[in-house]
Amino acid sequence: MTKIKATNITWHEGHVDRSERETMLKQKGALIWMTGLSGSGKSTIAYTLEHALVQRGHLAYVLDGDNIRFGLNKNLGFSPEDRTENIRRIGEVGKLFADAGIITITAFISPYRDDRDVARETIGSEDFFECFCDTPLDVCEERDPKGLYKKARAGEIKGFTGIDAPYEAPNKPELVIDTSKRSPQEAAVELCAMLEKAGKITALGE
Amino acid sequence: MTKIKATNITWHEGHVDRSERETMLKQKGALIWMTGLSGSGKSTIAYTLEHALVQRGHLAYVLDGDNIRFGLNKNLGFSPEDRTENIRRIGEVGKLFADAGIITITAFISPYRDDRDVARETIGSEDFFECFCDTPLDVCEERDPKGLYKKARAGEIKGFTGIDAPYEAPNKPELVIDTSKRSPQEAAVELCAMLEKAGKITALGE
Repeated sequence: MTKIKATNITWHEGHVDRSERETMLKQKGALIWMTGLSGSGKSTIAYTLEHALVQRGHLAYVLDGDNIRFGLNKNLGFSPEDRTENIRRIGEVGKLFADAGIITITAFISPYRDDRDVARETIGSEDFFECFCDTPLDVCEERDPKGLYKKARAGEIKGFTGIDAPYEAPNKPELVIDTSKRSPQEAAVELCAMLEKAGKITALGE
Repeated sequence: MTKIKATNITWHEGHVDRSERETMLKQKGALIWMTGLSGSGKSTIAYTLEHALVQRGHLAYVLDGDNIRFGLNKNLGFSPEDRTENIRRIGEVGKLFADAGIITITAFISPYRDDRDVARETIGSEDFFECFCDTPLDVCEERDPKGLYKKARAGEIKGFTGIDAPYEAPNKPELVIDTSKRSPQEAAVELCAMLEKAGKITALGE
């Protein structure tokens, strides 16, 4: 038999309450949902915000193609059904992360309004912040960081969002950013202010 | 244009490194994988450990049927293929949580050795701690907290692990606990000691 050294451990019947973790972390769980065309600046803003939050002592985490498409969702493709399931799973993971007290930032094209609305409903409006990267298509296409627009225009990629597949802009996003006019740093500052206003993090200096 | 107030925000090209979050949290990400028959004590130990870790100031989170089967994996059933996909997704989420710096505890029957080994490989051996709840079937069946053994014996549930579906015991689990002989508190103390030894958390008083 193990000798009990830590006598303050008690038998609990259920999960630790979210608020206990949030108190410990001095922040509240949230999901910032970046959406927009390929090349519109989603990932760059997400990383800039993640670094800014961690520098301020907050626990933040980016979910994007790097860690989702090659992991949890590696068995999904780019058909409309698979895109929907892709976003559904990301919404569910975002809900778990928010419940764990983390400020999570997702960076996916997520072209369908209904799919994003499912994510919003899954997590709950109070925790969901839709940030629309409303950068003009011609700017995104000129950036073409992964060379995907070129391939799509050449017909080498089918069903590419903005070229031969639709992007449905949000009706009521919490924030709109055109990265042809604003820097990722400016976007991150705006997003921090939004989180402060929503009581998810405390303003600097308070 | 937004006036930049926080001049210390810089433009980053990629994810925050896991080690930055771990330094902030004063712990290292890990996945404790509870496995065993229904009624073997997995969830009770998981909750007890979660509460113990949070009381010690650590960020811990339990993934179990409550938050997975009704969320991320609500489109999966109990066929062998669906069980495999269930465990695969949980392993991938566990990997994301560990990368976020969290000590995660999963509480699923996870009856197939191969599936658990996939989770171990996904996360990496250094972060994976398999805890086998080796409680005898007759004890689990007598407990029958959800009345499932009774239904399985009556033929109302098909493919129930331990009755008419196999449970494959781990070959080399990091910990074995028979909850007919040890309390959840004792198990939690052992698991904390295991995490300390692995350098995931600091020993109390250090």
